Amino acid sequence: MRPIQFEKEDRLTNEVVFKDPVHDSIHIRHQLILDLIDSKEFQRLRRIKQLGTAQYTFHGAEHTRFQHSLGVYEISRQICDHFVRNYPEEWNDAERLVTLTAALLHDIGHGPFSHTFEKIFHTDHEQFTIDIILDEETEVNRILKRVSPVFPNQVASVITGKYPNPQVVQLISSQIDADRMDYLQRDAYFTGVTYGMFDLSRVLRVIRPYKDGIAFQYQGMHAVEDYIVSRYQMYMQVYFHPVSRGMEVTLDRLLTRADDLYIQGKLTPAVPVLEAFFENRASIVDYLKLDDHILMSIISSWTENQDLHLSQLAKMFLHRRPLKSIEFNIERDLTKVFHLQALVSQLYYDEDYYSMQHRSSDISYDYSLKEKAPITLIYPNGESVDLSEASPIVRTLSDNLHGDDRLYVPSELLNEYPDPQKQLDLFENIYHEFQSYIINGRVRRKDELDD
Amino acid sequence: MRPIQFEKEDRLTNEVVFKDPVHDSIHIRHQLILDLIDSKEFQRLRRIKQLGTAQYTFHGAEHTRFQHSLGVYEISRQICDHFVRNYPEEWNDAERLVTLTAALLHDIGHGPFSHTFEKIFHTDHEQFTIDIILDEETEVNRILKRVSPVFPNQVASVITGKYPNPQVVQLISSQIDADRMDYLQRDAYFTGVTYGMFDLSRVLRVIRPYKDGIAFQYQGMHAVEDYIVSRYQMYMQVYFHPVSRGMEVTLDRLLTRADDLYIQGKLTPAVPVLEAFFENRASIVDYLKLDDHILMSIISSWTENQDLHLSQLAKMFLHRRPLKSIEFNIERDLTKVFHLQALVSQLYYDEDYYSMQHRSSDISYDYSLKEKAPITLIYPNGESVDLSEASPIVRTLSDNLHGDDRLYVPSELLNEYPDPQKQLDLFENIYHEFQSYIINGRVRRKDELDD
Amino acid sequence: MRPIQFEKEDRLTNEVVFKDPVHDSIHIRHQLILDLIDSKEFQRLRRIKQLGTAQYTFHGAEHTRFQHSLGVYEISRQICDHFVRNYPEEWNDAERLVTLTAALLHDIGHGPFSHTFEKIFHTDHEQFTIDIILDEETEVNRILKRVSPVFPNQVASVITGKYPNPQVVQLISSQIDADRMDYLQRDAYFTGVTYGMFDLSRVLRVIRPYKDGIAFQYQGMHAVEDYIVSRYQMYMQVYFHPVSRGMEVTLDRLLTRADDLYIQGKLTPAVPVLEAFFENRASIVDYLKLDDHILMSIISSWTENQDLHLSQLAKMFLHRRPLKSIEFNIERDLTKVFHLQALVSQLYYDEDYYSMQHRSSDISYDYSLKEKAPITLIYPNGESVDLSEASPIVRTLSDNLHGDDRLYVPSELLNEYPDPQKQLDLFENIYHEFQSYIINGRVRRKDELDD
Amino acid sequence: MRPIQFEKEDRLTNEVVFKDPVHDSIHIRHQLILDLIDSKEFQRLRRIKQLGTAQYTFHGAEHTRFQHSLGVYEISRQICDHFVRNYPEEWNDAERLVTLTAALLHDIGHGPFSHTFEKIFHTDHEQFTIDIILDEETEVNRILKRVSPVFPNQVASVITGKYPNPQVVQLISSQIDADRMDYLQRDAYFTGVTYGMFDLSRVLRVIRPYKDGIAFQYQGMHAVEDYIVSRYQMYMQVYFHPVSRGMEVTLDRLLTRADDLYIQGKLTPAVPVLEAFFENRASIVDYLKLDDHILMSIISSWTENQDLHLSQLAKMFLHRRPLKSIEFNIERDLTKVFHLQALVSQLYYDEDYYSMQHRSSDISYDYSLKEKAPITLIYPNGESVDLSEASPIVRTLSDNLHGDDRLYVPSELLNEYPDPQKQLDLFENIYHEFQSYIINGRVRRKDELDD
Repeated sequence: MRPIQFEKEDRLTNEVVFKDPVHDSIHIRHQLILDLIDSKEFQRLRRIKQLGTAQYTFHGAEHTRFQHSLGVYEISRQICDHFVRNYPEEWNDAERLVTLTAALLHDIGHGPFSHTFEKIFHTDHEQFTIDIILDEETEVNRILKRVSPVFPNQVASVITGKYPNPQVVQLISSQIDADRMDYLQRDAYFTGVTYGMFDLSRVLRVIRPYKDGIAFQYQGMHAVEDYIVSRYQMYMQVYFHPVSRGMEVTLDRLLTRADDLYIQGKLTPAVPVLEAFFENRASIVDYLKLDDHILMSIISSWTENQDLHLSQLAKMFLHRRPLKSIEFNIERDLTKVFHLQALVSQLYYDEDYYSMQHRSSDISYDYSLKEKAPITLIYPNGESVDLSEASPIVRTLSDNLHGDDRLYVPSELLNEYPDPQKQLDLFENIYHEFQSYIINGRVRRKDELDD
Repeated sequence: MRPIQFEKEDRLTNEVVFKDPVHDSIHIRHQLILDLIDSKEFQRLRRIKQLGTAQYTFHGAEHTRFQHSLGVYEISRQICDHFVRNYPEEWNDAERLVTLTAALLHDIGHGPFSHTFEKIFHTDHEQFTIDIILDEETEVNRILKRVSPVFPNQVASVITGKYPNPQVVQLISSQIDADRMDYLQRDAYFTGVTYGMFDLSRVLRVIRPYKDGIAFQYQGMHAVEDYIVSRYQMYMQVYFHPVSRGMEVTLDRLLTRADDLYIQGKLTPAVPVLEAFFENRASIVDYLKLDDHILMSIISSWTENQDLHLSQLAKMFLHRRPLKSIEFNIERDLTKVFHLQALVSQLYYDEDYYSMQHRSSDISYDYSLKEKAPITLIYPNGESVDLSEASPIVRTLSDNLHGDDRLYVPSELLNEYPDPQKQLDLFENIYHEFQSYIINGRVRRKDELDD
Repeated sequence: MRPIQFEKEDRLTNEVVFKDPVHDSIHIRHQLILDLIDSKEFQRLRRIKQLGTAQYTFHGAEHTRFQHSLGVYEISRQICDHFVRNYPEEWNDAERLVTLTAALLHDIGHGPFSHTFEKIFHTDHEQFTIDIILDEETEVNRILKRVSPVFPNQVASVITGKYPNPQVVQLISSQIDADRMDYLQRDAYFTGVTYGMFDLSRVLRVIRPYKDGIAFQYQGMHAVEDYIVSRYQMYMQVYFHPVSRGMEVTLDRLLTRADDLYIQGKLTPAVPVLEAFFENRASIVDYLKLDDHILMSIISSWTENQDLHLSQLAKMFLHRRPLKSIEFNIERDLTKVFHLQALVSQLYYDEDYYSMQHRSSDISYDYSLKEKAPITLIYPNGESVDLSEASPIVRTLSDNLHGDDRLYVPSELLNEYPDPQKQLDLFENIYHEFQSYIINGRVRRKDELDD
Repeated sequence: MRPIQFEKEDRLTNEVVFKDPVHDSIHIRHQLILDLIDSKEFQRLRRIKQLGTAQYTFHGAEHTRFQHSLGVYEISRQICDHFVRNYPEEWNDAERLVTLTAALLHDIGHGPFSHTFEKIFHTDHEQFTIDIILDEETEVNRILKRVSPVFPNQVASVITGKYPNPQVVQLISSQIDADRMDYLQRDAYFTGVTYGMFDLSRVLRVIRPYKDGIAFQYQGMHAVEDYIVSRYQMYMQVYFHPVSRGMEVTLDRLLTRADDLYIQGKLTPAVPVLEAFFENRASIVDYLKLDDHILMSIISSWTENQDLHLSQLAKMFLHRRPLKSIEFNIERDLTKVFHLQALVSQLYYDEDYYSMQHRSSDISYDYSLKEKAPITLIYPNGESVDLSEASPIVRTLSDNLHGDDRLYVPSELLNEYPDPQKQLDLFENIYHEFQSYIINGRVRRKDELDD
């Protein structure tokens, strides 16, 4: 597969600049990129939040997949500029076109609250990304084909990792790629936490192409370490936050209830836009109609549904009254956790819509540092070393961390005991039994006596 | 009306902190404030964007009324702390309760794309704010009444400006109030422009209470000047941006078409949630059901409507393909502008859904520096002076600025002439006539010859 | 004069990067620039503070001429890159060499506390800049001559404004040049005030070359306005600060006393390094030996001098106990001011070392917006307009502002009256007479009664 | 020892605010603190750079001990405010006076380039700090004694760690104290690296007093982790930087040469201000005369000294031409390193002034995380745990890191081989032998062949 270059006439006479709070400016220099941004499939990303339920914990986190995609494009563009100036031997700038295009489109198949949605409805946003690029009915596909009939396939192959040049693939997807570099900075900016702020400009200065892909100059090791630590901190502080996960769990229970009702033929009024999903036959057309607004409107309407559980869960989600959690040790505490879940069912109509176990690593981020190609450092004389060999701090973070397991239950079981006058005996008994299992926000060990 | 104080038991044992990208932390120290935030009416503000259509120009501007309201609360809290420490004689801290509550709730009646929506449907977000506070059916009202039966009225009177203590009223609403201090900083942060960044901490240090309201120490004049200039810059650069206004105009045309169809009995399928608005009989219950998600979902559904104009305008809005504009001088060019609008109608089905005049000051911000009480500076010896007397720069900004008038039309009339092969003769003739009236992005003056 | 280009071999294989808090990175790409930075004359700028006495008011303002010079170089480099990419017709990139060199060296003739020093000793840092570039004994000159024998003259002619290409001259020196763009941002960063922060990246995007020099795209007007306002704010808040000026006045009185003593043959012990200056015969060799450290060491030694006034003034400067000030109106209050100065002399040994009039515009910045070429805006169709015509705010700032006049006197005359037990009658009488002339920090008008 | 409280009348009517780039504002609320800041001993800290030679690598790092001391005071003040509001039971606010005073004065005994200076001249800045506080001749002592005759001793005992209340001691000196919190942020700000930026406001929110001193809420663990990682990054990137250490080594060799000459009676002209130091009999009066300016002036004068080595080393320091380094493994490479040093002596006059081994941990920071009391986390139920138990990342950083060993030699031995025409044979032979020992910037291992 030979790379196809930008053609001279594709270059814009005046670059178009998008103001961006993270990178200051996004510089668009080719008509192709501009047209892709203007396509209706790409504009749809304005209606998909980047961080799903995180905005219920960090109220600034309203940013969208649209701006993230522009950010990934911009970082890729800066890397190409850096490569062509400093590594003209190692980098073939004819790869710029496919690189920038893949960077821009890599998330175009994302939908609303992707992780939870996909788990319930068995969809796959990565497959939809490929479909949107290849399907002849999309505007994106038509624009890409202007370059060449095979260009959509080339772009898709970068995203699936099958493109022959590993430099291009790793720029878009590796342990330290343009995608992650943007989202860490962007999520940090919009949540307001400082942890995600690493020295991007230094990382972009020490990044370099080599024969097997992308590597970093050895003397830039600490900048890369800093990126790894920022990433760890963002997981611990933002992505794994128990309240955001509580909203995810609540959404999971809500959509499960809707799915159950549909299967039983009891979901009324009908929700046409979701039917293809309930029936596991969603096409790209069905999928592209979905966005955060549509799903949230449906949830709004369910707050008045006649089904008690559906309306209850919809209200919990819409008004931000999520299930709350305690931590547990999956090896030691599982029996107790099942007992606690049984207590919850006893209280709440013998249904399992009001408790759920949730593991932080179940969330929609690839957390492990191991599943992708290692990060390579290159010495001045050309020798190379794996980052985790050179850096004890990175080794620690690769090996030791795994998030936590939490049991989510109705908040009244974890809050202080409410006004006794208003409670039934049943609640009181279960409340106290439930509480007797808990200490310091987690399941109590055997050797820990009552306070 | 005697102020009602926070009661001791209302104070939270541990303050609750919201992470905020603008103020770093929002400190909640009273159960009342926390309960108001948790009310469903306040949570609804998470679903109302602060800046309406500005996010179509500045893609970071996804922030909501929810976070803005928290920000106004936080600034008010800091001012109360400052007053009680440094001006215990001039400030009665029993006013803190009503001040913080009014700060938090001042925007609770806002709806989706308020300005355009209100213009078409004759609603009033300020009235809805009062209604939500006073209506016995709202959670907000029930929480407020816990303080005292008259407390909702006290809070409402601050917002309407009738509360007897002018210090409290001016903190919430004046030329330099907690509301504006927050939104300038917040809008700057999320759009990514630096213009809105003034030295908030210095302004909060030189602000002071005096008998007639709120004033500033004379030596802090330049900090206040800086605020005024930031405000001017945000108007010029962000709030008056022609593309955001193009999206507003497009939304205006779209909702007008829907309204017209409804009146003619031709809006199918029905849109139950909007009917009370089409019929000018919307209650608080109708209103509280609305949010950005609901309105955007309706617009999504209209993209497939059988009515040509409704679906066309809905697509323009949803896919961000707004009407584009030229500037004109309302005193000199009005005849020409009407002629240009006639040309547009000729091309587009003899309808007026595709052109509109728009004045920047028509947008949903109170721009004028004159309509509210002047800003007062106080000398060390107690004498005072009006800011615009002391500062030539402020005088200039008060007198000279007025935004602009623009004519919005379909973009194809303003873009470069498209591929002639694909155009009908009618388009070609009108295009060239239209273009002959335009130079440098504005209506051509008589004395300006053709290029 | 034909421009001389960078030669290929002068390009560094790997660029050298200086970490900079303001611009993040300074990118050095040519051996010539690196060698100039390493010259001992340029390294000397590490020992000259950028803001003289401002650090006694803003304790962060310890930054040096060294880093400012690197910043001016970096901004110029970015502008050249922007011009060559976007205006290849209008900009001849062969000018890059002389532009970057002049940018780097434009301040190389600065000395310690330049403004005060030059006033007392009749030296001229601009002349020394030219001398250092042209004198065959300097390292700078030898490095420049490697390019060509005429190159030092070319560089000098840019700095004196005589270089034939006005684009190059205006980049280095105009109302909005690389020099000012750097120092406003840098002074803002190090003092910690936000006022100097304008949107540099936007200004650098709208700047453009044209036939008569440097101009700005019309649509970038507000970014340029913002720069003008920032500049005004920095003058009002930082450069004109009364306490920094008090330190300047104190230094002026101190050096004047030393000069007087020298002329009378009474300055002992001798201060060899200053003798050439006392005698108005300082050569470049004498000058290059001076720096902040040398001058401060001399002042330290004077704190123990046998001359009462010299040691008193040296202690006031070294321990930051400056003369304090009141404002006056030079047209109305001059008689009173002379009377007040007479009162001071009466108290302090009949000498005039303890009072001084100071006008803010006397400080070492070119404040007026008028003395340099106007700022030009260019429309899309090539027409141009003067910024102050297009912007009322700029017009106001050009016309109306002029700083203030202050009378500096010993602080005990302006502080609260001290412990009466310890005061002599003479002090008491004069103190009260002095105070009777003052109100609100300024000379009292006739019509203002006593409090 | 009973704590002595601030007296009511000591409170300033209007707080005095210093503008600070790091903390925005430093709030002074007591006359005592203001008078200490105005003392000549404290003003002297304006003339002592915080980071010694780091400014030769990071040109922004010109900040002084003066501003750092204000910053430590400000953080301590904020902590006291936080404690008194949230932990009135655990914290006795009568400790505020001694805490703030000790915070302000903890570094008052620092001198120019402390670490190198103390190594050569056997002085001790911590002892001088105590002396300045206790010596009856200082302004500081006189101001402190206004509070009570025993107050200077109380303040000194906080700094020596003997004060009975461990909370006060640990606030000023522990693994995570106000001192470190300020210098990490401040050094990060002025160098321009982002690594030192941790979430100070969150750390200040989770810090709490307990019976044995200072601890942190368990849920704030990640904020404390982040601080530890920032600290590690600042050491690796800034404090251990090889070029700054090269300047330190050069200064060490220079002062050693001066010391050697003095002992041999050959240091002419005399340097009166250093004599007490050469003779190891420096009093507090001698010490307080020293500052950066004085030492740098002496070095300037030495550039023209008749002693070849003194003038050579002085020029190297003044013009920033330091010795350069290679890394070595102290267990494996020591024989080779001695051989390399012998080669250097052979070239440079058989003297040892031109090479030196330097270990990064030899620098003037207490790097080890172990030497001070551990960091304690406290659970909601009052139980506590050591941070390094709870955090694998902290455990790693405590155990694994130790800096490096470097050999410093003249730069010509490490640069590319210069113009052969101009070199003597002796240099050529030694150069090539020297180079044969080196690979990738470090001493070559036996198993590594020549390139």
